Amino acid sequence: MAHTIANKEKLLLRIKKIKGQLSSIEKALEDEKDCFKILQQISASRGAIHSLMSEVLDGHIKEHLGSHVSDKERDKEIENLTSLLKTYLR
Amino acid sequence: MAHTIANKEKLLLRIKKIKGQLSSIEKALEDEKDCFKILQQISASRGAIHSLMSEVLDGHIKEHLGSHVSDKERDKEIENLTSLLKTYLR
Amino acid sequence: MAHTIANKEKLLLRIKKIKGQLSSIEKALEDEKDCFKILQQISASRGAIHSLMSEVLDGHIKEHLGSHVSDKERDKEIENLTSLLKTYLR
Amino acid sequence: MAHTIANKEKLLLRIKKIKGQLSSIEKALEDEKDCFKILQQISASRGAIHSLMSEVLDGHIKEHLGSHVSDKERDKEIENLTSLLKTYLR
Repeated sequence: MAHTIANKEKLLLRIKKIKGQLSSIEKALEDEKDCFKILQQISASRGAIHSLMSEVLDGHIKEHLGSHVSDKERDKEIENLTSLLKTYLR
Repeated sequence: MAHTIANKEKLLLRIKKIKGQLSSIEKALEDEKDCFKILQQISASRGAIHSLMSEVLDGHIKEHLGSHVSDKERDKEIENLTSLLKTYLR
Repeated sequence: MAHTIANKEKLLLRIKKIKGQLSSIEKALEDEKDCFKILQQISASRGAIHSLMSEVLDGHIKEHLGSHVSDKERDKEIENLTSLLKTYLR
Repeated sequence: MAHTIANKEKLLLRIKKIKGQLSSIEKALEDEKDCFKILQQISASRGAIHSLMSEVLDGHIKEHLGSHVSDKERDKEIENLTSLLKTYLR
């Protein structure tokens, strides 16, 4: 997981930001704030999750499918990746 | 925001669950756990955000566009909704 | 379906364009062209379908949920719309 | 592009089916059919495009990133793939 280590701080910040967005949605809901604003906040957190997925996936492919990886390991990771993408791209 | 009030507890539980998923991703990343499992967890949290959006949107449309709403209010909400969907459906 | 009539020519052009994109993907596949370019073309046609959906949905909401619609008709359309969005936003 | 050759007939059938769906949407629009049915048809064609993308991507990753590929070629394909996914996963 070297790629994640490399970007670890950056990814942890992204996750903290998304948790902050969700706490803000939670608070807006508890305070019965304007419903349309809640929808906008959920939409923004969806975008942030997509960016997180995209960034972790990018690092994962480079690290686990690259030419430094053993053939056996790569074949296993290719199976995992294609199966994940099938679910994610529904 | 009566519709959200009606489902408030249910929605708050959903949000708490997504925050829990994100804390678990955060921890897996800090502990440098298996990268593929992190991708699966992000994929699951994406699904949970979509379900939250779908549920709040459902309630919003029924509450703010229904026949009990004044024409002026409904026209404003229709503008808001179509604008939000344009962004969300990209 | 007045809203679609209003934009009918524009929407028909969009659909023709997407069909053209698919014919181009079909030809590239028959000619065994570069696989990555085929992926890029499919990605572009996906974007075009989303734009078509967004445009028809926009017109549909304005036309069928607006204040000129009878309460009974609107209630039916709200049921239809929320059910469609649940499927589409998975 | 061996993988696409292997599945060529199956993929061509998928594309023909999506073109058929679009022709049906086109006709429904020309005949000014029920607008909600048109939305359902567009939603179905979106699903079919996702399945096509998923299938071509699956074959692409197996064929172009597998252990039978030269290191130089694989590194290039990894760059292409991660860049495509960034766009597609927005």
